[in-house]
Amino acid sequence: MRNDQRYNNQLRPIKIIPNYISHPEGSVLITVGETKVICNASIEDRVPPFMRGQGKGWITAEYSMLPRATEQRNIRESSKGKVSGRTMEIQRLIGRALRSVVDLEKFGERTIWIDCDVIQADGGTRTASITGAFVAMVLAFGKLLETKAIKRMPVKEFLAATSVGILSDDTEILDLNYKEDSEANVDMNIVMTGAGEFVEIQGTGEEATFRIDQLKTMLMLATEGIEDIFGIQREVLGDLANRIGETK
Amino acid sequence: MRNDQRYNNQLRPIKIIPNYISHPEGSVLITVGETKVICNASIEDRVPPFMRGQGKGWITAEYSMLPRATEQRNIRESSKGKVSGRTMEIQRLIGRALRSVVDLEKFGERTIWIDCDVIQADGGTRTASITGAFVAMVLAFGKLLETKAIKRMPVKEFLAATSVGILSDDTEILDLNYKEDSEANVDMNIVMTGAGEFVEIQGTGEEATFRIDQLKTMLMLATEGIEDIFGIQREVLGDLANRIGETK
Amino acid sequence: MRNDQRYNNQLRPIKIIPNYISHPEGSVLITVGETKVICNASIEDRVPPFMRGQGKGWITAEYSMLPRATEQRNIRESSKGKVSGRTMEIQRLIGRALRSVVDLEKFGERTIWIDCDVIQADGGTRTASITGAFVAMVLAFGKLLETKAIKRMPVKEFLAATSVGILSDDTEILDLNYKEDSEANVDMNIVMTGAGEFVEIQGTGEEATFRIDQLKTMLMLATEGIEDIFGIQREVLGDLANRIGETK
Amino acid sequence: MRNDQRYNNQLRPIKIIPNYISHPEGSVLITVGETKVICNASIEDRVPPFMRGQGKGWITAEYSMLPRATEQRNIRESSKGKVSGRTMEIQRLIGRALRSVVDLEKFGERTIWIDCDVIQADGGTRTASITGAFVAMVLAFGKLLETKAIKRMPVKEFLAATSVGILSDDTEILDLNYKEDSEANVDMNIVMTGAGEFVEIQGTGEEATFRIDQLKTMLMLATEGIEDIFGIQREVLGDLANRIGETK
Amino acid sequence: MRNDQRYNNQLRPIKIIPNYISHPEGSVLITVGETKVICNASIEDRVPPFMRGQGKGWITAEYSMLPRATEQRNIRESSKGKVSGRTMEIQRLIGRALRSVVDLEKFGERTIWIDCDVIQADGGTRTASITGAFVAMVLAFGKLLETKAIKRMPVKEFLAATSVGILSDDTEILDLNYKEDSEANVDMNIVMTGAGEFVEIQGTGEEATFRIDQLKTMLMLATEGIEDIFGIQREVLGDLANRIGETK
Amino acid sequence: MRNDQRYNNQLRPIKIIPNYISHPEGSVLITVGETKVICNASIEDRVPPFMRGQGKGWITAEYSMLPRATEQRNIRESSKGKVSGRTMEIQRLIGRALRSVVDLEKFGERTIWIDCDVIQADGGTRTASITGAFVAMVLAFGKLLETKAIKRMPVKEFLAATSVGILSDDTEILDLNYKEDSEANVDMNIVMTGAGEFVEIQGTGEEATFRIDQLKTMLMLATEGIEDIFGIQREVLGDLANRIGETK
Repeated sequence: MRNDQRYNNQLRPIKIIPNYISHPEGSVLITVGETKVICNASIEDRVPPFMRGQGKGWITAEYSMLPRATEQRNIRESSKGKVSGRTMEIQRLIGRALRSVVDLEKFGERTIWIDCDVIQADGGTRTASITGAFVAMVLAFGKLLETKAIKRMPVKEFLAATSVGILSDDTEILDLNYKEDSEANVDMNIVMTGAGEFVEIQGTGEEATFRIDQLKTMLMLATEGIEDIFGIQREVLGDLANRIGETK
Repeated sequence: MRNDQRYNNQLRPIKIIPNYISHPEGSVLITVGETKVICNASIEDRVPPFMRGQGKGWITAEYSMLPRATEQRNIRESSKGKVSGRTMEIQRLIGRALRSVVDLEKFGERTIWIDCDVIQADGGTRTASITGAFVAMVLAFGKLLETKAIKRMPVKEFLAATSVGILSDDTEILDLNYKEDSEANVDMNIVMTGAGEFVEIQGTGEEATFRIDQLKTMLMLATEGIEDIFGIQREVLGDLANRIGETK
Repeated sequence: MRNDQRYNNQLRPIKIIPNYISHPEGSVLITVGETKVICNASIEDRVPPFMRGQGKGWITAEYSMLPRATEQRNIRESSKGKVSGRTMEIQRLIGRALRSVVDLEKFGERTIWIDCDVIQADGGTRTASITGAFVAMVLAFGKLLETKAIKRMPVKEFLAATSVGILSDDTEILDLNYKEDSEANVDMNIVMTGAGEFVEIQGTGEEATFRIDQLKTMLMLATEGIEDIFGIQREVLGDLANRIGETK
Repeated sequence: MRNDQRYNNQLRPIKIIPNYISHPEGSVLITVGETKVICNASIEDRVPPFMRGQGKGWITAEYSMLPRATEQRNIRESSKGKVSGRTMEIQRLIGRALRSVVDLEKFGERTIWIDCDVIQADGGTRTASITGAFVAMVLAFGKLLETKAIKRMPVKEFLAATSVGILSDDTEILDLNYKEDSEANVDMNIVMTGAGEFVEIQGTGEEATFRIDQLKTMLMLATEGIEDIFGIQREVLGDLANRIGETK
Repeated sequence: MRNDQRYNNQLRPIKIIPNYISHPEGSVLITVGETKVICNASIEDRVPPFMRGQGKGWITAEYSMLPRATEQRNIRESSKGKVSGRTMEIQRLIGRALRSVVDLEKFGERTIWIDCDVIQADGGTRTASITGAFVAMVLAFGKLLETKAIKRMPVKEFLAATSVGILSDDTEILDLNYKEDSEANVDMNIVMTGAGEFVEIQGTGEEATFRIDQLKTMLMLATEGIEDIFGIQREVLGDLANRIGETK
Repeated sequence: MRNDQRYNNQLRPIKIIPNYISHPEGSVLITVGETKVICNASIEDRVPPFMRGQGKGWITAEYSMLPRATEQRNIRESSKGKVSGRTMEIQRLIGRALRSVVDLEKFGERTIWIDCDVIQADGGTRTASITGAFVAMVLAFGKLLETKAIKRMPVKEFLAATSVGILSDDTEILDLNYKEDSEANVDMNIVMTGAGEFVEIQGTGEEATFRIDQLKTMLMLATEGIEDIFGIQREVLGDLANRIGETK
């Protein structure tokens, strides 16, 4: 049993509260164990300069942590006057992942801004952000459908993410909490589609390495875990869930 | 009746949820009407360089809004690489207000970091931040009392804030929501102590001016409104409320 | 008697030298006791992007201190690469105050840039800046009248500012110098119009508080002091003074 | 055959010129096809503040491109005043990868600064950087061995990197050049040790996804390609190559 | 005759008002024709980190222009968040020039901060800054002599600067005003010592070139002009002038 | 004899490798003794905003050093987030010098971007940059001639640069290496045209001064040295050399 009484292949409890904040077109609070992220999706009626005139949309993401989301208080990035490498890596990942399951040609020259703000952190904030942001984004597209601004849901597949890793005793585990994450030899983030394909695999042996058989075990754990997450997303999305894939 | 069915001298409903986030020493979610602010108080066991060796503590505040706390999405200050004048003004105000009711000599060489993060905005975010931050700060001092790091509550008085203003028809009103705030001729933020004294008065006639009799009416509205807020703070703080003033 | 031999209700000597710098459309050197500020008003024949096409003008202010305007040399804000919170607060205040007495619809799509550069500081730099900037601005509008670019003076009222405060012995005083300011319990900046109305009231009890009767005494001191300042402005402005209010 | 006449499992020609620049402790110019990177390793006799007093060393990397390393000139990051997300991602990757094969406890409180400066780019700059930086780092440790500052080579394993990908016709290929990279559906960077274990796997389906069987094919291509690279590194390093692993 | 009725070898009228600002240890307002610069010298009782423990002093300079010192208003460098290349070039020049005539070993571990703030510009602001800053610096050393902090004046020689240039009709002229400067083919700044030696020669043919005989004529004009400036400096400095050179 | 066995009037060996990098329109690696600089010239088909619509071209330069081009590693300017005063001074000098020998009206609304990246430094990097950048620029114009985008070479004259200086024993020397440069009393950079005229003279007596006879000796040394450099440039440029001056 793990430090929080879970089996190696067991996810932490996941809860997704839709319409959490009133202003955004799509908004959820996602809770994964003790990790809590507000994911907002905003629709802007234009695209960045480099995309204008192509009749396509764009999806971009920003990620931030409240200073005291963590055990120790972190200095605000706005006070430091620059965004850290870690933040940039994460927000590029979130944007890329979401774009991989959306048909950018099907929602006009609009930008979907995804904002993932971690209010409490206990490991897995980037994967929770992707899972939550997917739901917020679908809700936002739901608004465009409602107002008939678009006719069909431009989302092609479900999308969710989780982490897997290898502890120092060589055990492979699913969905690492902060304590596990800081002690693990290997840490891997996996993003998958509802069709069971990979979107991103980012595996890092921080001061350690891993073999191909270990990789396979981790991918299997991730695949099963993500399958469960799709169920939770589907339930939150209700009728909108059925419209995913309708432009394929 | 006002646009949200209130009387001119009526506050919006206020709710303060204590211990909202798990890591900070003090944490609340304050809701004032549709305005929601997470106020966290963190204790650091040292003071800024300019204060070292004096045996005194320090209190400082930071304020931020999630990009989509507002009707229109705002660019993140960390992305812009600088903090706006408005944000600086507000965080200086919050820090100054809290310091005015705390005996800095009574909690050792520690810094209390106050973080006010607005997750949903509908006017009055700076006054809600002060009211909520006061409770978070007292909770944090409660932790120092619990662990016997200090012996007496260094907070001398209650502290709360609200806004008052004058509409274009010359009506004075209490606790402006966003719509009222953007249409008002005069906007005034008032911070007061439990003893009924003023800590800050910031009144601005944006493209308008006001007379001394109008000022008096506004001060009276604020005084009565803040009196009610003290009751809500007192209830949330429970036993800790009774320790306020014990170092006087 | 105060540390510079003044009565509690006595202003320091004020001198305003018009046309101090040759290039700006309006320029004064204002001296208030030992405080000296160069106030320049520049006219630009366009407005910021957010105001274009509305047929209205805009007034904005910047404030700075020479590094050695003060007893200790300060690091230049250009060297630090960012403007301090204090500077931002002051320049927002100056701009807001000036806009409150000008009819923005009456001078076309122009921007008035106000630059207040403190060359020597002894307390009250922000209020001296407002008082001086008002004169510089009227002189600049005078240039537009001369060249017949506008037909009537768009300034509706006189505008001036001063400070009041409460010393630690509870005495209320007018127009604090630096030494008084650093020792005072309460510091309040007041901006008023020629019609005797308030534009801004910013009162702060830094580590102290104040009662309503004290507030009233301070407002009275300020009102009388500002009355005298209007006389000095009027004298410097000569004929232009008579045109103030002609668009009302 | 591919656009540059290679087989799918064929690397581009690789050349590593040691001691390329005279000042650094370790320096190489690595050429992979048309991609050219100067990799310098500098030894500093202290570690960053967060590591002082632990008796351990540190390895950190910086990455940059000359503005005209690419087909279109890029704006210099020093002119923009900030480092892009892409650059940060890459330099974090290089540092992490090198640290995974070095025993940080075996070279004292020293920092190895790795500088990878791309002077000509044709795809695969980050993997070429890792492969070249490894050699530069071993050369730098060679200097410490020569001067008897350390007694044993602290490098535990060989380290090299390459890319693999999937073209739009579903072909898996090894070592993508720029044209292939911009057209590929999937792009994956693999870092491996001389013992055949993985250090990093970063696979991205930009606007595409991939299946587990495709992943396996790519991993196999990478494993074989990297095996060849180790041979080239070994030849350049000469006697130093034999000292790798001696602290294990 | 030139555009302001001067002969080719004639300086503009120069006036130096000592003790212009009250706080700095040395302060002058220098006027050269229509160019006006406040030059302040501040003494700090320590040196920058790279010089500590050597028993030597340091001299450094900063230069700035008020936004409306010029015909067109310039954006403040503090607002832009960075100092321009032109400003950096000038402040490096001023610091270097002053250091060349001071014995840094003769005033202890102190830093002399020179601040040159141009309040009105009509060409020649950098040479006026050097000429004025020299006087401000000597006045500051005078304060150290007065308080017996040092025993002898550490300034070895007089120092002054002027500009020379070549007009498009090939005429060489002394001390260019703004209009001449913008039309000249060649512009050269010369800094000289009281002993008639050169400290700096910076000659630039902006979109033009010059011959050696023209260079000689310009150097002769500069030498004669600077000779006159020394007289003005000497008069302002009074008794302190006689102490220059006493450590040689 | 000097520290590297040269006569006082002897240049270090100079080598210019054309077409060094493949992407830029013009590219050379220039080696002057141990100093190595990659000079790239890029053509952009537009000019900066302030020049649009005038039918003229523009030439601008950027200069940088690899962190370990020097004996001690320097912090990257992109990491510091700002460009140093020294870098700005150098890139302004390079751009100004190149513009002085080109007829900006003869190559359309195009910008020539010059990038000088020092990969190894041993003194004289700015003069090597000018000498190399001139060749890269002519090569780039050669591309425009080849594609018939322009009909005549817009370069009017050859251009090259070197340094001269005075050692502490009063010897005047040509082309200082790093050791000489750091010990010299006077350091002077000279830029000249093929017609033997001066473009820039920048002479600095860092903590020293120089007499007019010394200046003359230095100018003579520079003139002879630069004459030799023109021969090397001419050889590298081949046929293109003959087209220089054809628009005069």
